[in-house]
Amino acid sequence: MLINGLSSDLISIRDRGLLYGDGVFRTLLARNGIALQRQLHLEKIRNDCVRLGIVCPASSLLLAELDGILTSHPNGIIKLIVTRGQGSRGYAPPHDAQPTHIWDVSTAPEYPPEWSRSGVRVRVCDIRLSEQPRLAGIKHLNRLENVLAAAECTDSEISEGLLLDTQSRVIEGTRSNLFLLRDGCLITPKLDRCGVAGVQRDRVLAYAQEQGIAVQIRDVMLAEVYLAEALFLVNSVIGVWPVRALNERSWSDFSFVSRLAAALEQRG
Amino acid sequence: MLINGLSSDLISIRDRGLLYGDGVFRTLLARNGIALQRQLHLEKIRNDCVRLGIVCPASSLLLAELDGILTSHPNGIIKLIVTRGQGSRGYAPPHDAQPTHIWDVSTAPEYPPEWSRSGVRVRVCDIRLSEQPRLAGIKHLNRLENVLAAAECTDSEISEGLLLDTQSRVIEGTRSNLFLLRDGCLITPKLDRCGVAGVQRDRVLAYAQEQGIAVQIRDVMLAEVYLAEALFLVNSVIGVWPVRALNERSWSDFSFVSRLAAALEQRG
Repeated sequence: MLINGLSSDLISIRDRGLLYGDGVFRTLLARNGIALQRQLHLEKIRNDCVRLGIVCPASSLLLAELDGILTSHPNGIIKLIVTRGQGSRGYAPPHDAQPTHIWDVSTAPEYPPEWSRSGVRVRVCDIRLSEQPRLAGIKHLNRLENVLAAAECTDSEISEGLLLDTQSRVIEGTRSNLFLLRDGCLITPKLDRCGVAGVQRDRVLAYAQEQGIAVQIRDVMLAEVYLAEALFLVNSVIGVWPVRALNERSWSDFSFVSRLAAALEQRG
Repeated sequence: MLINGLSSDLISIRDRGLLYGDGVFRTLLARNGIALQRQLHLEKIRNDCVRLGIVCPASSLLLAELDGILTSHPNGIIKLIVTRGQGSRGYAPPHDAQPTHIWDVSTAPEYPPEWSRSGVRVRVCDIRLSEQPRLAGIKHLNRLENVLAAAECTDSEISEGLLLDTQSRVIEGTRSNLFLLRDGCLITPKLDRCGVAGVQRDRVLAYAQEQGIAVQIRDVMLAEVYLAEALFLVNSVIGVWPVRALNERSWSDFSFVSRLAAALEQRG
């Protein structure tokens, strides 16, 4: 719990992060004193800040603070939030806004190991994602759609909900990105209208490129998901989850996904 | 500054209001120790809480706290925020969430008096509102679209920006609701896909009904706005602003809007 470099777990009620969700965040997994993909996460949060016109603290500062946190918390989930900071009343971003940056640490969730090995059951959420190109891809603090989507997934047999847009294009999971394997080609939805572009998604894409696996980043209709030879979900905390069931459709060949997961895991 | 009944201006960084914008708010104008339309505001915030599944504190509690605030701050802007409260990591709303409710007081903005008398100049924002029926009408804490819209309105001659949806339907101002007068009929955009349903909008509708003025709540294309005999913006803080110019179109007959504004003002 570090706010602007000082040990604290309280922020002002006038911080625009609270008032308007005017900020961004990323979630890192720490293991044995190492925050996995920290450079990629910092790049993402910096790019997200640029898109919203928020001044992101210097990477050297963030890395130094992260090192300090890892010393006392070598394992767990480390969340970095950057908000536009405090300002006078009203939606317009103040010209002199001083960003607030927050580090928070929590225990890593213990997912059943079979979810990674034998896959998870997913459902299609009723709520549809709205389309806002100006915010698409950004991991910002306006996450009510994810909250409402997660609230739908109360069945303990269901590990994740799939989110579609209003045109029945599949976009992502409530807290993960989605990939399909079809005819040896790796397909993942475009995130130019909605969705969050996660670090783990980039890593899968980089892996595919290295391995000479064809990749398509494009619109994916829900109907096509059922035709996939394999389906999997990724994020920085869960790693890779193969999907074993979506409604009546089930999958049992996880060989490709297992190889991919092992390769990503090995790179740390 | 009162948080859950205690004097404070700091909340936990684990409050879901900050983490996900998982909360709602309303803004009241206090004048001579009276918070205008307090019952209507409390009804609105309660309804918004219901739609998000947030437990809203009892009205009796909120009214008692508000009375205390008015004693020390008889004039100004009083903001009430209700968030879902703190919870364990993850988007899913915790079953045992204890809501956080926050009162904040600030000085009322001093708008030039001629804005109410002689109208304001408005522009059409470039950003388009996304459509999310599940959140439409609610004054929730996911307000990045308003932030980006307000950031566009840097011209000091422009008092407010109009927000359209992707189909060029006019929805609202960045911080106000919009009305058109056409052939003696009062028209205001439907807010079932996006937008915030303000208390002052309801008051205008109630006034029209009392006065026997025809009302239409429906989709309004931008093209129709230019055909209006009068155009005006409302919210609880500004009251009523006639529009005197939108791009090349200008209006100069403010008689209807002035009568309406005076009537609403008189009711307090």
